[in-house]
Amino acid sequence: MNVAVNVRSIFEKANFIRDLGVTITGVGEGWCESELQVSDRHRQQHGYVHAGVLATMADHTAGGAARSASGAKDVITVEFKINFFRPATGDRLRCRAQVLRAGKTIIVAEADVFSNEKTGEKLVAKLTETCAVINQQ
Amino acid sequence: MNVAVNVRSIFEKANFIRDLGVTITGVGEGWCESELQVSDRHRQQHGYVHAGVLATMADHTAGGAARSASGAKDVITVEFKINFFRPATGDRLRCRAQVLRAGKTIIVAEADVFSNEKTGEKLVAKLTETCAVINQQ
Amino acid sequence: MNVAVNVRSIFEKANFIRDLGVTITGVGEGWCESELQVSDRHRQQHGYVHAGVLATMADHTAGGAARSASGAKDVITVEFKINFFRPATGDRLRCRAQVLRAGKTIIVAEADVFSNEKTGEKLVAKLTETCAVINQQ
Amino acid sequence: MNVAVNVRSIFEKANFIRDLGVTITGVGEGWCESELQVSDRHRQQHGYVHAGVLATMADHTAGGAARSASGAKDVITVEFKINFFRPATGDRLRCRAQVLRAGKTIIVAEADVFSNEKTGEKLVAKLTETCAVINQQ
Repeated sequence: MNVAVNVRSIFEKANFIRDLGVTITGVGEGWCESELQVSDRHRQQHGYVHAGVLATMADHTAGGAARSASGAKDVITVEFKINFFRPATGDRLRCRAQVLRAGKTIIVAEADVFSNEKTGEKLVAKLTETCAVINQQ
Repeated sequence: MNVAVNVRSIFEKANFIRDLGVTITGVGEGWCESELQVSDRHRQQHGYVHAGVLATMADHTAGGAARSASGAKDVITVEFKINFFRPATGDRLRCRAQVLRAGKTIIVAEADVFSNEKTGEKLVAKLTETCAVINQQ
Repeated sequence: MNVAVNVRSIFEKANFIRDLGVTITGVGEGWCESELQVSDRHRQQHGYVHAGVLATMADHTAGGAARSASGAKDVITVEFKINFFRPATGDRLRCRAQVLRAGKTIIVAEADVFSNEKTGEKLVAKLTETCAVINQQ
Repeated sequence: MNVAVNVRSIFEKANFIRDLGVTITGVGEGWCESELQVSDRHRQQHGYVHAGVLATMADHTAGGAARSASGAKDVITVEFKINFFRPATGDRLRCRAQVLRAGKTIIVAEADVFSNEKTGEKLVAKLTETCAVINQQ
């Protein structure tokens, strides 16, 4: 299977990603992009998109980027760190992830999450993630 | 309002937390606990609970612990880091969060997430989170 | 070689650790302790111990704890995250690290750094670290 | 004082940075660069530059970038996360830091550390750091 098929499969087969509404919008060697139409269920107590939604989207898209660089093998998230820069109040999120370093057993990727705020598209969160390369399941 | 009311309010007013099914099960000064009945929608492509579900639960419960230590003021997540130790395959998650350091403007909390695996309750993830204290909204 | 010999060797053979003055004070399966006599060279522009000194001590001691749990194999740091809770102004630091999860290829450890402040020993920093298990060199 | 003077002062007045040999090589609004001539004292047990040296350099240079964006106020490190991509075996390190988000109370910066390896300059580590803006001391 080629890179795109492998990575798209990660999005299609993950119940939580489908349930949330995150869809893959692009993929290539070492990168992956996704988007999400925000609805009220994604928000937290202040009306902003919940940090967990941003983290889920960034984690999964970074995992997609990592998977695009792991050949025939699968990847799982070992850990990630995410910073939140400003509240996401728009109705659409876009995420762009890219691999920083692809080793045989560990792949590190980062992901930026953008929100279409009234003043334009803004960077609302940035994640750095470590994935482990595992045998295909 | 007292601590418990303030913190319970964070869980009740957050759409995404209600949508996910995370409920608060205990709170005191400097700590907070929650649980989640896992269903198929929470899983990822390997059948494990999605990292984003674990992260959301840990983030929100750590935020609850931080809120229990911020007096009349509210808190927001500045950043967090989470490590995943093993796949969560059970049908129930439990999270325990506690404050590590409560300053006037910044509160740091950590959260452990446990899954009831066939071999007993196991630690599946650990988060460390930095919150900012903000004026009540 | 036994655990203690392996871990002590990591401290003795690391130039930068000897140069800094960090010494191992205890080790067992899954944990490691160290200390440092602070001198003026360890400080930053405000007179506090530099974050880099705290990070180095925490990283190396966490690596020691990980090495105590890796059998015949060696470990290297893949990544770490560290929070700083208050300025370290004392003349002695103590670090305690313990393994959170020891897998075949990845070991996660955490480390607390304490400073003997005028008001007593205080927690000044906490680190979480991911190590990779590698073949002995 | 202008930006460059403020930031250079952070490097000159920090004992540990001078002791290590890290020098500032450039600064502007929102960015800072530094370098280090590696010597044997900077290495760990495998002969590579110690993770603590890379972390110190990245932390301090990110702090310099943050300071360039904090106006008349000073900054301190709240937390950082750093990933290590490959061993640093060269004799010179270069660090480039830039601000990701400058708020009134919190500034987030990232820093890349490069090593001049035999095969050319390589990215060996990447840090993301949260700083708090404090009153001038």
